[in-house]
Amino acid sequence: MIGDKTEWSKTEKEIARKAFRAAYHRECSDILTTVRKMASEAEDPASLWQIHDFLSKKRKESDEKYDYRYSVLPLVFARLMYEGRLKPEDLEGISEDKLQGIRQFAEFYARS
Amino acid sequence: MIGDKTEWSKTEKEIARKAFRAAYHRECSDILTTVRKMASEAEDPASLWQIHDFLSKKRKESDEKYDYRYSVLPLVFARLMYEGRLKPEDLEGISEDKLQGIRQFAEFYARS
Repeated sequence: MIGDKTEWSKTEKEIARKAFRAAYHRECSDILTTVRKMASEAEDPASLWQIHDFLSKKRKESDEKYDYRYSVLPLVFARLMYEGRLKPEDLEGISEDKLQGIRQFAEFYARS
Repeated sequence: MIGDKTEWSKTEKEIARKAFRAAYHRECSDILTTVRKMASEAEDPASLWQIHDFLSKKRKESDEKYDYRYSVLPLVFARLMYEGRLKPEDLEGISEDKLQGIRQFAEFYARS
């Protein structure tokens, strides 16, 4: 598994937890903005159920994406960086070797 | 099955289809009003996913409730009458024996 032998210090874990939570809140806030727009524009049953379909898709996606196991966290953070949910400053205080790994994974996402 | 031997004339079918559709639109409109309120008040991920839970419940309920088979239609209309989704005037033109059955079922709902 990715990074499963990497140790995270107590401080790093606190930073990681905060960054993870911030990204998740940003993602949910964006979903909510879309839901508000869809709800304000909906005019018929079909467009009502489109909101449900949208939320089902987003919930499944975010359940899969926001996986807080330290073994996969560098990959999760890389994806969130690539998607703009995390900024470099959110991860300040995390060791350089971990950040380097995260950046490499983020480049991988950018290329794929 | 309830009412499976009852014949519906072409005109009755047209009235029934229109009433059924009107009730479904009213129901969806009420769900949408609640979704808009929930979305405008939501502040965190938990309240976002509550919208999804609410829509999942309502979709399941309405899929079950809006069953347009003539064999069960008197029961469906009775429930919609009892819930205030249908008004007596929506069913004007449907034969008196059918209306009587619908009213009896509606009373059953009111008592249960």
